Amino acid sequence: MAFEFWFEFASTYSYLTALRVEELAEARGVRVVYRPFLLGPIFKGHGLNDSPFNVYPVKGSYMWRDVERCAHELGASFRRPSAFPRNGLLAARAALVADDLGASARYVPAVYRASFERDLDISQSSVVSEILTSLELPAADVLGRAQSEPVRQRLREQTARAEGLGIFGAPSFTVGSELFWGNDRLEQALDWAARLP
Amino acid sequence: MAFEFWFEFASTYSYLTALRVEELAEARGVRVVYRPFLLGPIFKGHGLNDSPFNVYPVKGSYMWRDVERCAHELGASFRRPSAFPRNGLLAARAALVADDLGASARYVPAVYRASFERDLDISQSSVVSEILTSLELPAADVLGRAQSEPVRQRLREQTARAEGLGIFGAPSFTVGSELFWGNDRLEQALDWAARLP
Repeated sequence: MAFEFWFEFASTYSYLTALRVEELAEARGVRVVYRPFLLGPIFKGHGLNDSPFNVYPVKGSYMWRDVERCAHELGASFRRPSAFPRNGLLAARAALVADDLGASARYVPAVYRASFERDLDISQSSVVSEILTSLELPAADVLGRAQSEPVRQRLREQTARAEGLGIFGAPSFTVGSELFWGNDRLEQALDWAARLP
Repeated sequence: MAFEFWFEFASTYSYLTALRVEELAEARGVRVVYRPFLLGPIFKGHGLNDSPFNVYPVKGSYMWRDVERCAHELGASFRRPSAFPRNGLLAARAALVADDLGASARYVPAVYRASFERDLDISQSSVVSEILTSLELPAADVLGRAQSEPVRQRLREQTARAEGLGIFGAPSFTVGSELFWGNDRLEQALDWAARLP
């Protein structure tokens, strides 16, 4: 059964998932389908115009400490970015093109590391371009297609599909009609996918 | 280092923790300090007059399915209660008295099971009384002390302390100044406590 990994590049907990999803999926013989989407429009539907971690500062301070501890457990060199949330629109559009090139498993963690380990502003095309180049992907071509109307429309449709599936945060995982929310559910969701034919 | 388990009897995820905290703590040589508190006053401070799971129905539907799956993994016979959230005020006051009697490790999971497995209304003194009696605790005496002004005041103070520690949900765990939120952090918090002298 297909395992779909729904992520938003602004999301700290999606970073923790992106670092480990391929290894855990492979161990279970599960293939990861990458589903970039945007949380902004979904939060707006809940009356939130900013990340809940900014709207509720007490949750925000907790989140930064929690992500730091969890990254430490993974041996990852997390650094709190100087801006949050970072606009992941361009990187998400480029993710759709990178996926067409079969490069999601390399591109997605590279974007997260740029944002959450190197404090780079992934909303800038120069930053996304540098990431693509470092992965030996055709940066100018990918960015050109990323900004084309068909790709913009695909991202809008994928965000609408996420909302239709009941997704309200990132990362989320779907296996058929079953929804799992949060980096903490990664193993459970993968196990679910591995059990189904 | 003391491991403090902060719980609210209305909280579904605290139920999942209550079922397993003693066994996991014992395996690590950690002693559990039980800290009942009320989430209502804390949610009010965030502008919420109801459980976030009722305020955001899409999160609510997800939560019920998630708790069901997690309870199934634990082999627990979870049943969605006919009312949510249930008022846990009386049961929380009685928890302070039960703790004085050294009975938290038996009383706390028994209250959660009554609410989330037997669909009993734990806001009723007859229900709390039945639970106390089944544990061979002096029900009338415990309930009398639970409703006394000093115990009411202790619960108010404990809720204020929770808020002061940055607690915004349940279950939460504290080890010194370190805060952990959610049933998913139980193991990490216990490991933290076990590492400290």
